[in-house]
Amino acid sequence: MCILSKRSRYAINAIQEEDAAAAVLSRSGKKIIKLNRGDPPAYFKTPEYTLKAYAKAILEGKTYYSSGVGLEELRIAVAKRYKRMYAVDVSPDDVIVTQGISEALLFINASLINQGDRAVIFRPYYTQYVPDLELYGGVPILERYVESMDWSIDPDRLDRSIRKDLSRGRMPKYLILTNPNNPTGTVLSSGVLEEVVEIANNYGMILVSDEIYDEITYNGAKFKSISSLAKGVPHIILNGASKGYDATGFRIGFAIVPGDDDVSDAIKSKLKDFAMVRLSANTPAQYAMAEALNREREHGIAIRRMRKEIAERVNFAVNLLNESKYLHVVRPKGAFYLFPRFEKEELKLNDDHGFVEKLLKEEGVQITRGSGFGERNHIRIVALAPNEILEEAILRIEKFCRRHSK
Amino acid sequence: MCILSKRSRYAINAIQEEDAAAAVLSRSGKKIIKLNRGDPPAYFKTPEYTLKAYAKAILEGKTYYSSGVGLEELRIAVAKRYKRMYAVDVSPDDVIVTQGISEALLFINASLINQGDRAVIFRPYYTQYVPDLELYGGVPILERYVESMDWSIDPDRLDRSIRKDLSRGRMPKYLILTNPNNPTGTVLSSGVLEEVVEIANNYGMILVSDEIYDEITYNGAKFKSISSLAKGVPHIILNGASKGYDATGFRIGFAIVPGDDDVSDAIKSKLKDFAMVRLSANTPAQYAMAEALNREREHGIAIRRMRKEIAERVNFAVNLLNESKYLHVVRPKGAFYLFPRFEKEELKLNDDHGFVEKLLKEEGVQITRGSGFGERNHIRIVALAPNEILEEAILRIEKFCRRHSK
Repeated sequence: MCILSKRSRYAINAIQEEDAAAAVLSRSGKKIIKLNRGDPPAYFKTPEYTLKAYAKAILEGKTYYSSGVGLEELRIAVAKRYKRMYAVDVSPDDVIVTQGISEALLFINASLINQGDRAVIFRPYYTQYVPDLELYGGVPILERYVESMDWSIDPDRLDRSIRKDLSRGRMPKYLILTNPNNPTGTVLSSGVLEEVVEIANNYGMILVSDEIYDEITYNGAKFKSISSLAKGVPHIILNGASKGYDATGFRIGFAIVPGDDDVSDAIKSKLKDFAMVRLSANTPAQYAMAEALNREREHGIAIRRMRKEIAERVNFAVNLLNESKYLHVVRPKGAFYLFPRFEKEELKLNDDHGFVEKLLKEEGVQITRGSGFGERNHIRIVALAPNEILEEAILRIEKFCRRHSK
Repeated sequence: MCILSKRSRYAINAIQEEDAAAAVLSRSGKKIIKLNRGDPPAYFKTPEYTLKAYAKAILEGKTYYSSGVGLEELRIAVAKRYKRMYAVDVSPDDVIVTQGISEALLFINASLINQGDRAVIFRPYYTQYVPDLELYGGVPILERYVESMDWSIDPDRLDRSIRKDLSRGRMPKYLILTNPNNPTGTVLSSGVLEEVVEIANNYGMILVSDEIYDEITYNGAKFKSISSLAKGVPHIILNGASKGYDATGFRIGFAIVPGDDDVSDAIKSKLKDFAMVRLSANTPAQYAMAEALNREREHGIAIRRMRKEIAERVNFAVNLLNESKYLHVVRPKGAFYLFPRFEKEELKLNDDHGFVEKLLKEEGVQITRGSGFGERNHIRIVALAPNEILEEAILRIEKFCRRHSK
């Protein structure tokens, strides 16, 4: 349609694209197993103290606008969390509250990207990174999380690749990491992270680190926050209520820009400008999130319980999946996604799109195509459901693969 | 700072720009009268049934993601409201739930505007219309709400002006109205609206009507929704929880695209794509808003009470202001803003910026500069506070003007 803008073609989210088809099947009486959304509170009730703080703020009538940059109580609580967990000095003024990380990504791209500007994104990437960059005229430089290295980064390869780009006059404005990773579940080692920080510093790229899964790690993972490694290098940390605080539906995220160099100051101040343009995030949810952050002890108990349960489900699903001759998955150490590669030579399916569409129609299992994350030979499965549901889904997937095998 | 994008200079919101200075004054012990934010729940508690529905959704653990396009219950409730209030057929599928109208404006501009595309915006405009358009490379065609016509529109002048633009090859993609108006309080007559609809239709412009104040009218106003006048002409209605439902802090708005022509279908589907990219709006707030919309009788009582109180405050403030020889204001018929012109010849103030900055510093009254709305000789005052506070503020403004008079 010529009425629409050219950029509007980038408004794609693979995660929900089968929702309409799934709803039609559901209405016709088919029982659909939905493994497409990384939505902890759909499986683990948000902690009572968080819900109570939220309800209290509402019943007290705290339903007015809050400051565009975010409630002071919440920004203080965020700063304290970073001091406590990562021993870094974050001022409440370094924190911008956003409507989920989704909105923080928009603000970052709107603030930094001119038509044709580049940014380094690692493939497989979280679905929104590329569209959000392209919406503002940016061009992704796609580097690799390497599957054969358990989806880690090869810093030497990264360095060579960026040097090559520079020699062609392509200077990336920022580099974005997801750690722990969605969709692969990788937790990057501190050695790799240190090298990435050095590369960002050498080439003057702003480092953006999406750490929304920072407390959901297991299988021996040792998570390090970029905030504790990148002192003196301009960086933005993204985090929020959705995953570890088990409250996706709050739509409360935050961007932290801890540096006080000129670049960090300029970015911080511009992110605040964008936050003020849209007036406010949801006010009572911010009170609830402040309480959730401040309840250190109770949160510790809740997150340990959820982490253990998630690790069991993820490992259970990985073990089942890796029995298949059609699918192979790297065992995650964080988050709650499985990102199996399907053996194209074994299957008569054209691509991941066909895989996902047919699987939904034939077996009633909704997952997400890998190409939504930049990988055509993969699929993403959310491993948050109880084992019996995961088992049923994986059995159906296996049956489906067998039926479509060559 | 060269690190920032060129477009980032458009991220300006005049409404909050004195907040930092006001906070400094506040901390130093000065009592600030804040009349800058149009925030009903700061003065009128959100109705109990809405708060209870919100708290109930939370305590039941409805804190997961909802559908990107919005909760079905809410979209059904919106459709019913339009049937009930304006006798128009809106399908729940025509409704896209957004994080306030702020987000709807972003989706609309991202969907429609290519670099250099035009849109018709009437001056004085709501602060965000111009920046949101410019952020996506659009160029405003500024038409006029005419102060001498009580801030109404002159349709003949509009028609001539657009014809002239067309003859220069400038075809505006959309035309946006705010009715009832922020900042002027005008409620456009159905005669004027019909002519605007005809003009939009003649020139193939999409009509966007921001009707967030549709239930806050008084002083004999007769409000007509574009939805009841623009059948067959592609249009988008914007509304939400913030004003009439007294719940700014929910951040729940909606865009309605009622048509089923090709243009409306393309826009509707694209707005949904953008909504899915950012995953979800706040879930429990959507349950609360659905309840607020469905409680027809209780809402009727609440809105009548609030409307009456607002009308009294607005009229009280207008009467006081118009005693001044420095300020003159058109009496509003809707919303809760006063947009007085200050007589530049009488005052030694350089511009509206100086007016607002000095007024805050010298008298501790925070208002908004008219240039934030496109008018340099005006200021905007929010008339939601109780009469004694409005009186105190206006006396201080008068004292301030006298001190700065020539």
